[in-house]
Order: sequence, then C-alpha cells, then structure tokens
Amino acid sequence: MILVTGASSGLGAAFARLYDAQGYKVLFTGRSKEKLSNIAKQLSTSADYKACDLTNYADVESLFDSLERTPNTIIHSAGSGHFGPIEEQDPQQIQLQIQNNLTTAINMIRETVKRYKDEPVNLVIIMSTAALSPRAEMSTYCAVKVAVKAMIESVRLELKGKPLNLIAVYPGGMATEFWDASNITLHAAELMSADDAAQMIKGALSNSDLGYISDITLSRKQ
Amino acid sequence: MILVTGASSGLGAAFARLYDAQGYKVLFTGRSKEKLSNIAKQLSTSADYKACDLTNYADVESLFDSLERTPNTIIHSAGSGHFGPIEEQDPQQIQLQIQNNLTTAINMIRETVKRYKDEPVNLVIIMSTAALSPRAEMSTYCAVKVAVKAMIESVRLELKGKPLNLIAVYPGGMATEFWDASNITLHAAELMSADDAAQMIKGALSNSDLGYISDITLSRKQ
Amino acid sequence: MILVTGASSGLGAAFARLYDAQGYKVLFTGRSKEKLSNIAKQLSTSADYKACDLTNYADVESLFDSLERTPNTIIHSAGSGHFGPIEEQDPQQIQLQIQNNLTTAINMIRETVKRYKDEPVNLVIIMSTAALSPRAEMSTYCAVKVAVKAMIESVRLELKGKPLNLIAVYPGGMATEFWDASNITLHAAELMSADDAAQMIKGALSNSDLGYISDITLSRKQ
Amino acid sequence: MILVTGASSGLGAAFARLYDAQGYKVLFTGRSKEKLSNIAKQLSTSADYKACDLTNYADVESLFDSLERTPNTIIHSAGSGHFGPIEEQDPQQIQLQIQNNLTTAINMIRETVKRYKDEPVNLVIIMSTAALSPRAEMSTYCAVKVAVKAMIESVRLELKGKPLNLIAVYPGGMATEFWDASNITLHAAELMSADDAAQMIKGALSNSDLGYISDITLSRKQ
Repeated sequence: MILVTGASSGLGAAFARLYDAQGYKVLFTGRSKEKLSNIAKQLSTSADYKACDLTNYADVESLFDSLERTPNTIIHSAGSGHFGPIEEQDPQQIQLQIQNNLTTAINMIRETVKRYKDEPVNLVIIMSTAALSPRAEMSTYCAVKVAVKAMIESVRLELKGKPLNLIAVYPGGMATEFWDASNITLHAAELMSADDAAQMIKGALSNSDLGYISDITLSRKQ
Repeated sequence: MILVTGASSGLGAAFARLYDAQGYKVLFTGRSKEKLSNIAKQLSTSADYKACDLTNYADVESLFDSLERTPNTIIHSAGSGHFGPIEEQDPQQIQLQIQNNLTTAINMIRETVKRYKDEPVNLVIIMSTAALSPRAEMSTYCAVKVAVKAMIESVRLELKGKPLNLIAVYPGGMATEFWDASNITLHAAELMSADDAAQMIKGALSNSDLGYISDITLSRKQ
Repeated sequence: MILVTGASSGLGAAFARLYDAQGYKVLFTGRSKEKLSNIAKQLSTSADYKACDLTNYADVESLFDSLERTPNTIIHSAGSGHFGPIEEQDPQQIQLQIQNNLTTAINMIRETVKRYKDEPVNLVIIMSTAALSPRAEMSTYCAVKVAVKAMIESVRLELKGKPLNLIAVYPGGMATEFWDASNITLHAAELMSADDAAQMIKGALSNSDLGYISDITLSRKQ
Repeated sequence: MILVTGASSGLGAAFARLYDAQGYKVLFTGRSKEKLSNIAKQLSTSADYKACDLTNYADVESLFDSLERTPNTIIHSAGSGHFGPIEEQDPQQIQLQIQNNLTTAINMIRETVKRYKDEPVNLVIIMSTAALSPRAEMSTYCAVKVAVKAMIESVRLELKGKPLNLIAVYPGGMATEFWDASNITLHAAELMSADDAAQMIKGALSNSDLGYISDITLSRKQ
C-alpha cells in the first residue's frame, strides 16, 4: 500500500495516478475533500482518499490510525510557496509557509518513525531544489525546505541499523497549480509536467538489503 | 544604540552587559519583565529594556516603533532548544521551537530590512553550530537553525549594494540557562561562559566601507 | 554508445557489464590492459576497451579522438582511496589521490564540455558519500571528492541552456577491490555489491526534454 | 612567533606587516627570494624570511625544521587563481592551481598536525568565499578551495581534545596582485585592501581555553 500526501493537485496527484495505474493500492490525502474526490475519478476503484490537515498533529495520528496495514511507501508531497522580497512577504503568509512545509513534514516524519521505525518502510519526502541553495525573493521557502532537509539528515542518524528509510527528493520547478497560489509567473511550456516528474522520481527509487537511493535531485533544464 | 533580543539570560544578557560596560546605549528585550529588570540591575542607568514577544509580529513592530533612533547594531539572540529522538519530542515543544527560533528570526529580519535596508545597520543573528551539520537527537533544533541560516543567505542576495549587513553567528554550546529548559545534561565546567562567548563574538565583528565579517563560528573545544 | 572509465574493476566494471548485457555498445577504459582484457571476457563481442591514463591530458584527448561517434552516456568511475589520520598519510599517496580522483575528473569534464556541450550527452560522475560530509581519517579523500562536486556544480552554471547534462552520483561503500588499495578493513558481507549498486544507479538515471535526475546518493544501510 | 606563508604579496604580506607592526616576531615565506626581500624592507629588523616552495613536501619539512620554537600562530595564505569557462582553462594552469592551493594547504596541515598536535597552536588557513558556493568560470578555483575546507573539517574531527586549532578563513575578493595572474579584471576601487582585510581577520581571531573563533567569512560589500 502507498500513502500519498498533498495529492489534491500537482506532484502528489501525479504520484497517486502513477502508482494506481501500476496496480498499487493507493491511499491519498489532501485538505480539500472536493479536490480529492476529483482526483479519485481519475483513479481505479481500489484507490481511496481521506481529507486531513497535516499541520494538525491529531489529524496526522488519525490518518495513520486509519491505515489497514503498514504502507510500503509513504510519499509526502504536501507543501506550498509564497515568494517576494522579505519585506513584502506577508507575516501571515510566512507562518502559513512554515506550517504547510515544515510542520507537516516534521509531523509526518515523527509519526512514521514512531510507528514504523522497525519496519521496511520508505518515507519519501518531496522538497525542492530551493532546499539546496539560497535564492533571492524565495527566502522563507528556501528556509523551510532546507529545514526539512536538516530534519531528514538528523533523523537518519537516529535510524542507523533500522529498516525504515528516509528518502529526500529535491525537484526543480514543475508546471503545476503550485504557482497559482504563489506570486511568481513561470512559463509552463518550459517546465516539466508533474506526471513526467513523478515518473522520473519513481524510477529512481530503489533499494536492496544493503543500500538504497537516499537522495534524488530532479533538475529542470534551463 | 545597540538593540539586544533574548537578553533576559544567557548570551543575550552577556551582550547587554558587555556593550553597556563599554559605554554603548543598550536597549534589551525578552519576554519576562521580571527577568529583564534583574538584568537591568547589572547595567548602567543608561540601559533600557522593553518586554515583548518576538513570535508576535505586532510586538516586533511596536519594539521598533519604540526606538528613538536607528540602532547601529541589532543582536538577535532569542531562541530555545528541546532535544531527544524525534518520536520522543513533544509536538507542542516542536511548535514552540519553530516559533522561538525560526519565527522570531524571520520577524526580526523582515522588520529590520523593511525599516533599515538603506542605512548602515549591522543585524547580528545568533544561531548555533547545530545549523552547520545534522545531529542525532537534535533534529528540530538543527532544522530551525539551518532554516535561519538559509533565510539570512537568501535575504543577503536581496540586499546587494545596500549598507545593511546581515551577520551570521554560529556559537557552540555555552554554560547558560538554555540547557535547563532543554532535556540535555551538559557539564558546565567544560563549556564557555556566555560572557567569554560574547566577548569573542563582539571582537570578531568589524567592517569597513568595502567589506565586513559576515559569518563567525565560535566552536567549543572538546 | 556508452563510455565507462575506471572499468578494470569495481563499479566501473559493473557498469560495463550491465550496459553490455542490456545490448548497449560499450567502450570501457582503465589503466591496466591486462585487467581490461579480463573484463572483456565477461562481455559481449560488441564491447571494446582502450587502456589510458586519465591523469594525463593527452591520454584523455586521444581517448575521445578514438570514439567513432558521440557517446550517449559517459560514466566516469575512475578513482582511488587512501585513508588514515592526516599525519600518517604518505605525501606521495596524497598526491596520487589528488591525481586519481580530482585531476581525472576535471580532465574528463573539461574534454566532455569542450567536445559535446551542444549535444545531448549525459556525463555521469561517480564520487562518494565522502563528498557530502567531513570524516575523520578520510581527509584527503573527502577533500578530493568534494572538489569534484564543486567542479560539477560550477560547470553546470556554465552549461545553462545546453543539452549536455552533468550528473553527480554519490555512492556509499561497496564491496570492491577499491578497499584493497586503501588501508581500511571493511566487512564485505555488509556492503552492497558493485553490480547491485550499478543497477540501482542506472535505474535512477532518466531525463526528459525539460528535466533530468541530476544528483543521486546511494546510501549504504548501516 | 608568527609564521606567514604566501607573504611575498597580497594578504600574506599584509599579515606580515600587521603582526610585525604590533611587535610580534614574524617569519614569512614565499617562493621568490627577491619579493620576500622587498617585503622585508617594510618590516622591523626582527622579521625574518625564508624562500620555499610549499608544493614540495621536503621544502615544507625544511621550513618547519628551521623554526627556532613552536609558532603561536601559522597563517597559511599562499594560493593562486586562474579563471574562465572550464574548456578554456589550460590543463597546465589547472594543475598549477591544484598544486598552489590544495597541495600547499594539505602539506601545511599535515606538517603542523604532525609536529604540533599537542601544543596550543593556531593554524589559520586562508581560503576564499569561492569555497562556499559554486561559481561559473571559477570551477577549478572553487573546487580546490572547497577541498581545503573539507580537509580542515575532516582533520578537526581527528583533533578532538587537542590544543591545536584549525581556523578557516574565507575572504571575498581583495585589491591585490592575485588578480594580475588570473584572467579576470576587477575594479580595485571597489575591493577591500589587503591591509584592511588582514586587520579585520586578525581582529576576529580569538580563543579561550574552552572555545575559539573557528571559521570567519569576510565578505566584500557589493
């Protein structure tokens, strides 16, 4: 079973479609029941969804409680962006970004480690190439993404010898609804589609008893 | 004039003492009026304090509103730590750490840039060597500290050609009350005192028209 | 056509075997003609090899001169390690490590960029997880590996808009002859085989017109 | 006693002048006896120099053999730069850069650790802000500088509990003869002078029994 968060649009939805099309049982989540039910229409009848707000720890616990069995792979794809020079970023939008990117990721990592640290589970965390270097007019976004990266790398040190794998994925910009809620204009024609990105990332995930692909950067050609 | 945050104890209090002793006019802040008034007793009568909660943007604005003139140097030293394996860190403590470390720093950076980006001000932001590499049982702390680092490095790119300097300081562990609120036991005798650390950091701050010490790591001998 | 360097043993040889088995035309290189001819016996008759010393720029040029057409993928897997506290590393061994790891990589990058920067070529450079964080008793090895990483990241900035892709691969320790020449003892049973590693890395390589997997870390479970 | 390398010009010469003016006994080195003797004319009669080629390990040993007592501080400031797109960098110039920057630094670190690891010595290694992020047309220079950074950080792990301190300094561009030998044109009027830089860096160096300023970035205003 595959659990996908942030699946009401963009890369999360693309992962839900991809795993479903390849015959996996998929459970997908997002905040909006309506959007999730629209995605459900694109999937097989075996796919299931559950609305929840991952910034709320109780919601995260109840999501994991609802799982019938241990997922093989959890893809945490929830997140949002808001850009601009720091003095023009609204303080409330800054808080929202912290919540949507950092709090959700910590909550998902914490609950996965708590429940599954002794099981062979892959927790795949989707960040952004913005985690890899500072960028003007993306300060808060870079900050919360690099925070998640440090979180993963610190928790990995706690998981030595454990079968649970934390997999860090850093995709460059894709043509998704993500940008609608930001205040940046990008030319969609020059961006990867979310479906292409999901396919390349899924192709890169692999592991054996002795090793695993732990970090993947998907760069956009520019 | 020097503005020092997080000055009710530890390194912030040490900076307030040091600048005051050297004849600077110091305004210092913290959350607890009582603690601040205790620090005030250690300082000259020219020093002044104001209680405020830097996680609250309105408080940050009112702090800056209360300044009679542009500070030469702002030392942001507020912060807190909470440690342990991720699954044992309390979700509320995690949120508190995000607020106390990341939100306060973003708020201070944003307001300083907004008001003073065209003035020769030094904004010194105290982080931790935990910002520089991942560490087991310090995951949230590493995450929020590296987030502040990325924030600084991104905003610097927005400040090219401006006289405002963002100065990043990464001190190793010191013998302060910081550790009382964490759940780690350290041997104070092996740690730098906050006063020694403040002195070394202050000594390292310098700038000319064409350059400035932008990043300082103060490592503890171990 | 696939060009593989460092193919007389270890991961390079594994890549040669893997691509050959999947029907690609493979040209592989190494310093020792004898070792290369032994590897050739494991491959189909379409595979070909050429002995050369990549620390010598003239050899690199003559290797590229000998190619009948532009390779689709070049896998640069040459390298060597020598470990121990810095004061116990022999100065000549230090020079050898610089030559075998940094000089060969710069030479390969330089010649590939010079010839193929306007062609859709993937240059895959195999480094090590030692490039990703400092390590005691591996100082020179970490230094030369992180140097190659910086080289790749700098040259990528020069290749914006070009079809040539530089792909950085950071594998953890594998069970190969690499360790014989170093002075470290590892338990082979706990290490990935070179063939497993090659398969996982090859699986992760993919690209579209708009994006490509640019960085891959293959961690060893420990 | 203070030992300064790379002192025939630029920042090295500035350090020699600064420490000499403050009454320290200075021994300074460089490759050209003639240049060194010109610098000597600017210094007090207590200063001494010795020509040597730090890329040659025997020269490094003989330099240390010639010291009458353990230096308090060693400032390694030797280095050179050569810039341009990778395919336009001459292979011999690339080798020279590796030798002048990476080999000299490793040699100095190795010999200092070997002789003084149990003594309270500060080994200050001057790199460049080019060590801190990749840059187009500076690929080899970034590579060798970040290699020295990794070297320092790895060797520090070997020196835990030892009184010898490795201090990493990353200055931005200064107005020195360094640029004459490179192929980049900079406007000297916008650059820090070497003397200003030396003063700011020297001011930042400080230590106590329990801690020390270990890393300093001196950024240029731009």
